[in-house]
Amino acid sequence: MRIMGIDPGIATIGFGLVEAERDRVRLLRCGVITTPAHTPLSTRLSRIYNDMNELLALLKPDAVSVEELFFNTNITTGISVAHGRGVILLSCEQANVSIYEYTPLQVKQAITGYGRAEKKQVMDMVRRICALTDVPRPDDAADAVALAICHARTENSLLVRKGTDGTCSTI
Amino acid sequence: MRIMGIDPGIATIGFGLVEAERDRVRLLRCGVITTPAHTPLSTRLSRIYNDMNELLALLKPDAVSVEELFFNTNITTGISVAHGRGVILLSCEQANVSIYEYTPLQVKQAITGYGRAEKKQVMDMVRRICALTDVPRPDDAADAVALAICHARTENSLLVRKGTDGTCSTI
Repeated sequence: MRIMGIDPGIATIGFGLVEAERDRVRLLRCGVITTPAHTPLSTRLSRIYNDMNELLALLKPDAVSVEELFFNTNITTGISVAHGRGVILLSCEQANVSIYEYTPLQVKQAITGYGRAEKKQVMDMVRRICALTDVPRPDDAADAVALAICHARTENSLLVRKGTDGTCSTI
Repeated sequence: MRIMGIDPGIATIGFGLVEAERDRVRLLRCGVITTPAHTPLSTRLSRIYNDMNELLALLKPDAVSVEELFFNTNITTGISVAHGRGVILLSCEQANVSIYEYTPLQVKQAITGYGRAEKKQVMDMVRRICALTDVPRPDDAADAVALAICHARTENSLLVRKGTDGTCSTI
């Protein structure tokens, strides 16, 4: 299964595509979409939309794993990122790809087993899980890979659970 | 000049189209876009995007006047509305229409002359300015008409100012 993690934003949007098969995860590609500062919000949103459409057509994920927004500090940043996230979700919906959403806590939990893990620990686990020499760069791309792995693991554990209790015949 | 006011949201999006000429404003059309509750956010965003595209093609505004988000109470609502607003701005950008943004305070100021006016006063002024028998319904449509009037008045006062001081030859 090809899973694309997406770390939403307005200036920088991280993406990371993995191929996941049971408990094995292979990183296929990751990077960022960026939009120029000091340009109108609507222009940046249009750039994000076009780039997302291109990426989805190119990478053909079966599912996307998008970070849920959680803000308790800077509401202005939160509002701005939510504008970008709206456009990202629109692009995924139009591409007819399954959309899953995870909170930062769920991502940390799925990757390190501990919801309050330090960012450094999460990044190091991402490197190990994907058998990479270095942590993917920039940070937003690594965060997106973490989101993709989170969905792979959640999906996998759902499969196992479904298989074990025998209550679900179709997946 | 045809100005379309837009009151952004995720469940209900108000719109109001006015024809503005100097200090005269005529209401041409107003209404709401609605999205069904209990459907995924991405589906609702897609609905908003499609309906916005249709409206812009049909109403052909020269400018849109979109409410700026201002939240100090419910951040969850704010984040949700911002998703919708992102998609609305994208649609306007793609339709190549000029986008103007106003805070609720600016709208109240432009319509009643007082930034902290009660909603009822604003609505009553909207009715008078457009020479209507009743206030437009629902509220979101009336709010959108207020946004359109706000831009008409701001634009008009800019024109006057530009004309008076003679520093601007093109408008």
